[in-house]
Amino acid sequence: MATTYAVVGKRVPRVDAVDKATGRSIYGSDIYLPGMLHCKILSSTQAHAKIKKIDFSKALAVPGVKSIITAADVPDIMYGTVGNIRDRSFMARDRVRFIGEPVAAVAAIDEDVAEYAVSLIEVEYEPLPAVFDVLEAMKEGAPLVHEKLQEYEGSTGLRKGNICSLLTATRGDMDAGLSEADFIVEGTYRSQPINQGYMEPMACAAEVEPSGRVTIWTTTQAPYAIRNTIAETLQLPMNRVKVIPLEIGGGFGAKLRVSFEAFCVILSQKTGRPVKMISSREENFTAIGPRLECVATIKTGVKKDGTITARQVHAVYDTGAYLGPGVGAGVGHSTGPYRVPNFKAESYAVYTNKIWAGSYRASGVADMVFAVESHMDEVAACIGMDPFDFRLKNILEEGDRSLTGEVIPTMGLREMGEAAKTGSNWNTRKQEDGWGIGVAFSDWKSGTGASTATVSLNEDGTVSVLTGTVDIAGSDTSLSQIVAETIGVPFEKVVMAKKDTDAAPFNGPTGGSRVIYSAGRTVLQAAQDAKEKVLRLAADVLEANQDDLEVVNERVQVKGSPDKGRSLAEIARLSSSSKYGSIMGQAALSQLPFAPIYNAVVVEIKVDKETGMIKVLNFTQSQDLGFAINPNSVEGQMEGGAVQAIGRALYENFIFDKGKPVNPSLTTYLLPLALDVPPMSTIMIESVSKEGAFGAKAVAEPPGFGAPAAIANALYNATGIRIRDLPLSPDKVRAALKAKQSGS
Amino acid sequence: MATTYAVVGKRVPRVDAVDKATGRSIYGSDIYLPGMLHCKILSSTQAHAKIKKIDFSKALAVPGVKSIITAADVPDIMYGTVGNIRDRSFMARDRVRFIGEPVAAVAAIDEDVAEYAVSLIEVEYEPLPAVFDVLEAMKEGAPLVHEKLQEYEGSTGLRKGNICSLLTATRGDMDAGLSEADFIVEGTYRSQPINQGYMEPMACAAEVEPSGRVTIWTTTQAPYAIRNTIAETLQLPMNRVKVIPLEIGGGFGAKLRVSFEAFCVILSQKTGRPVKMISSREENFTAIGPRLECVATIKTGVKKDGTITARQVHAVYDTGAYLGPGVGAGVGHSTGPYRVPNFKAESYAVYTNKIWAGSYRASGVADMVFAVESHMDEVAACIGMDPFDFRLKNILEEGDRSLTGEVIPTMGLREMGEAAKTGSNWNTRKQEDGWGIGVAFSDWKSGTGASTATVSLNEDGTVSVLTGTVDIAGSDTSLSQIVAETIGVPFEKVVMAKKDTDAAPFNGPTGGSRVIYSAGRTVLQAAQDAKEKVLRLAADVLEANQDDLEVVNERVQVKGSPDKGRSLAEIARLSSSSKYGSIMGQAALSQLPFAPIYNAVVVEIKVDKETGMIKVLNFTQSQDLGFAINPNSVEGQMEGGAVQAIGRALYENFIFDKGKPVNPSLTTYLLPLALDVPPMSTIMIESVSKEGAFGAKAVAEPPGFGAPAAIANALYNATGIRIRDLPLSPDKVRAALKAKQSGS
Repeated sequence: MATTYAVVGKRVPRVDAVDKATGRSIYGSDIYLPGMLHCKILSSTQAHAKIKKIDFSKALAVPGVKSIITAADVPDIMYGTVGNIRDRSFMARDRVRFIGEPVAAVAAIDEDVAEYAVSLIEVEYEPLPAVFDVLEAMKEGAPLVHEKLQEYEGSTGLRKGNICSLLTATRGDMDAGLSEADFIVEGTYRSQPINQGYMEPMACAAEVEPSGRVTIWTTTQAPYAIRNTIAETLQLPMNRVKVIPLEIGGGFGAKLRVSFEAFCVILSQKTGRPVKMISSREENFTAIGPRLECVATIKTGVKKDGTITARQVHAVYDTGAYLGPGVGAGVGHSTGPYRVPNFKAESYAVYTNKIWAGSYRASGVADMVFAVESHMDEVAACIGMDPFDFRLKNILEEGDRSLTGEVIPTMGLREMGEAAKTGSNWNTRKQEDGWGIGVAFSDWKSGTGASTATVSLNEDGTVSVLTGTVDIAGSDTSLSQIVAETIGVPFEKVVMAKKDTDAAPFNGPTGGSRVIYSAGRTVLQAAQDAKEKVLRLAADVLEANQDDLEVVNERVQVKGSPDKGRSLAEIARLSSSSKYGSIMGQAALSQLPFAPIYNAVVVEIKVDKETGMIKVLNFTQSQDLGFAINPNSVEGQMEGGAVQAIGRALYENFIFDKGKPVNPSLTTYLLPLALDVPPMSTIMIESVSKEGAFGAKAVAEPPGFGAPAAIANALYNATGIRIRDLPLSPDKVRAALKAKQSGS
Repeated sequence: MATTYAVVGKRVPRVDAVDKATGRSIYGSDIYLPGMLHCKILSSTQAHAKIKKIDFSKALAVPGVKSIITAADVPDIMYGTVGNIRDRSFMARDRVRFIGEPVAAVAAIDEDVAEYAVSLIEVEYEPLPAVFDVLEAMKEGAPLVHEKLQEYEGSTGLRKGNICSLLTATRGDMDAGLSEADFIVEGTYRSQPINQGYMEPMACAAEVEPSGRVTIWTTTQAPYAIRNTIAETLQLPMNRVKVIPLEIGGGFGAKLRVSFEAFCVILSQKTGRPVKMISSREENFTAIGPRLECVATIKTGVKKDGTITARQVHAVYDTGAYLGPGVGAGVGHSTGPYRVPNFKAESYAVYTNKIWAGSYRASGVADMVFAVESHMDEVAACIGMDPFDFRLKNILEEGDRSLTGEVIPTMGLREMGEAAKTGSNWNTRKQEDGWGIGVAFSDWKSGTGASTATVSLNEDGTVSVLTGTVDIAGSDTSLSQIVAETIGVPFEKVVMAKKDTDAAPFNGPTGGSRVIYSAGRTVLQAAQDAKEKVLRLAADVLEANQDDLEVVNERVQVKGSPDKGRSLAEIARLSSSSKYGSIMGQAALSQLPFAPIYNAVVVEIKVDKETGMIKVLNFTQSQDLGFAINPNSVEGQMEGGAVQAIGRALYENFIFDKGKPVNPSLTTYLLPLALDVPPMSTIMIESVSKEGAFGAKAVAEPPGFGAPAAIANALYNATGIRIRDLPLSPDKVRAALKAKQSGS
């Protein structure tokens, strides 16, 4: 741990702490524009049907209703999520494929009028056969969700029936690997549908100027994705669409794509007035893609000594009515952070007549980690080995290759595992009745993708930073620290400029643990560029060699002659009339080398055998994260992810009845509450990356992975029952205990 | 004239044309924020007095009044205009020095309440002796406007009595020059006080967040100057102050500095609510610096053949209660664009108890052009030479040195003069009774100073540009053209991002004809940098040599093999995942070489001898401007400047009675109206600069210079009377005609 840093590695307060705490931050619902109209959506009540007729004459006659749009008002251009098949429109065109699919949108002078008008729209449907279960949907003869699937543009991989995507991976020789094994263990694991549970529902506003230029204010993780989808589908050049990302009350993947922005834009085009949409909580369940079911079967060959010889994986992801992003990405994580010499996997995405699958904290990966890490314990049990030792025996080492071929660099996987073991009660546990302990490992790679930054020096020596990357969980604070450390100014002297998509070229989304590794490195380089320009000018001013200069206490001075110098403020003031111009550093980055991160979760639980309730007593997490730019933020990320993972393990379950959401509200969808959160111990392993700013790697995704498997493993440890179907709810636990008692 | 360009040199419509025409552009008065308060100012009723007591208890008791501030609430930090003496505070502290000086400010729930509260504030003054006439103020024993002048920080030059600044310049040997002359001609010329006459009064709003960070929305030519002055005087780091410049309804120099922003900031700090101030027209006369009087005496030695041998200039500028910017800058223009081998000038800035002098279209220079160009005609008359020929005989040539030492580069001064002569009725005139023709030349140098820009390529091949330079007169349109031409895209595919001071480091103001030359060159370089990055990536993609690539029809292709290529959109899409990252070009510039511009005005007038009214019949202007990026904008600038100059010549006069403004309104202050504008002929001489983008030099200032002298010269031509005192109003003309008739 580098103790010589002045700013990075310190627990500085978040730059937005006061404004957030005092309610001054501007969210989507805070946008008020003169003459603004309000938008409400009419959604499909049918899981699969032809739209025969939409009659909105009564609705349009309501005083205060300014415009009503249907698919007929939207250009007939389909879109998809980046890199995937183009299979959807903003609004149902001729046919609805899930309950909740937008069919019409109303703009009116206030929300009540809009809602009343929506209630007057009459839609005549002709119901079609529908399919809801993902395994049923794979069968020959199942009703087709997309009849014209073959004609869609952009898909890769298999397309057949309701199967819209197939990812495969192989390594080594599967048959040889299995024949080398002393035991072969197989299990099928199921993850449930999950709503992302962000606090702030979708909210956006759009204004179309008379010149046709569009401004969109929205709560988003990915302003450029919003801009690009809107521009492409509404046939606008990108320089005519500006997206202003606002403060964001949680996203967790749900805010990576357009939600209701297009409706506001089209209604604003039609009315000449700004249009705002604040969605209801229900709409955030029924119209914005959650995660759906995943069914994964894993077969592993293992030697008596615990060496894994082979693994075969067959995963099916329910993608709902439209292909969601990252479906099937779990394949890349189906070996876990372990050496698996012989490997074969196939992963299907399959349409059903349910809401389309969206992103939730590393789409598809969390499901796979539950399968893999439950399975690892089953394999360890089979050979009678301590589950922790079994994992540590098989972990990847420096120089190994990842499933996708990257060479594993120096990293702290073993150290992370050992720390989780010694930092928890694993080694000191005493088995008591109903008490159990469980472990799960997981891995992730630090996200890359496009980031740009400019770093400007103001004439009093303070610094402004402009990036296209959105702050959700405190990244602006950490990026400020990186810049402050690099230039040599106190943290308070840096400001992150507000962003919009006009101000910088394409920047990747805030997701996939991308920001600190990728944007962090980018602001570092932009700050270095700015500092270089400071030193270049200072060298002229001081008549010194640039290499002989250093910045100490916000002052550029000659090494060894500290009296010969100029303050940063003076250099900045001189710069604006110098031959070099005002000081602005710049950087654009995209590809960065492979920087894997690793996480271990150890949970202790107590099972109430009467009620079947699992209580988490202790939660220990260890993560190899390179370097903690701001330990506060890192702990926040790790604890937040853990809480979500506990929810996914024990409580959350988005239930459908023939495609109809049964519990689309926070009273019936069980998010974990404060009392459900156990004491947490968070261990940061600083195995610095050569590439990240000050050695930082990613943090956010893996803390959300391990808990479901670790808790399932602890349940097995406590009771001997193995539940392979999330959530680990009291009814299932009770049933399993009962079955076990009755010896079945 | 380069006819090979696709975008520059074309008359494209302004990028903001539709939004301006439809009223959608956002001005200061359009800012509404939740909980916003309104500010009103109490101004001094005394020209010079001690403030003995301010009692605002009654005002504070008015329901709806939230805060009242006086100088006691403002940090006791004086400031000045850049580079000048620090002689002022935002509010009068202990003493008022002019009628209209702010003494207190009220924030209330609406403007009416604020205004009523202002009326209840009681100020007890102890009057002090005051001085109003600038020549009186120079005399020994005159009342001192600033008793502690000697203690002020930051002044250069002479400081004595009420003289706060003295600029001098010498060249050659004055005595020798005068003794070489056959004739010596001397005259004293006076320019009147002028209000800038911008359409939009000052309007601003400020919001202080709980974290202390300040956002200011304002109508300004110089957002960075606002930020810096506010930050310095209110003791905030610059990264805690963000200035968002709004659309601006005219500035002409008046919006180069803080107006009422500080009051809004302090009142917002005190109340925790946003505070807005929309000033009245009267406040824009009485609280925001106009130009004040200038008295210039010029003595010129000339040979019989018309060769100027020497010139001596003594100028006195009234600077009012506080030193205004650029006072005395006229010295640099007191030779005009002529060879003057022996030269001596002194120019004084003198305090009086009137409102401080601000900027108005090249502060101090317009006054000097009136003096010099009236004087040139008097010298020509003395030797019996045609005034046009006299000018052309003495004009500067390439290789000469300017007064400030720069070598004159290739330029079009002679061409400009000849064009004005042949393009007007000068050569074909027939003298009729009451009809006259007059000419005036003037010069300016293309403004430089800090400019920065980034140019981003969007994934559909459109382009976004970010600069810190504010658009007033269409510069965003011209800058867009420069970028479009450079990258190789249609004009419509470029957008200028909205600016704020966080997004870029210090950029100079929009003033002094700076933008097209300096910011234009900067966006050119940033666009070249972006294009370079496009070609670098395209070379990789096409496996070609970068030098062999060209951009044709928004496509990068191999020269000679046009089928081998990729669209700009494809390159942009590839860039965001390439090893180089998203494409963003950048440039920062400050110093640029000397690029002088020249203007000639020829006016024809008709004098009504009965009323003394002068009517301008024809107005011909010729200007060497390098290259017209957008001829529409250039003509707009040239015609607009000419109209203002006609106003200054004939109508405008800001009158004071013992320091009290007599005509602070648009009904009593006579701006020229549409009917006062004569037919105009505008000749653009394109003598391209090596440094400017596509050869462009500056445009805006000189068109505002020549008319007063040209009209005074035409009056002499028509009637034989010489008026040396602006404006050339009917009463003066009648009196002069009467005096002439009576032979006096």
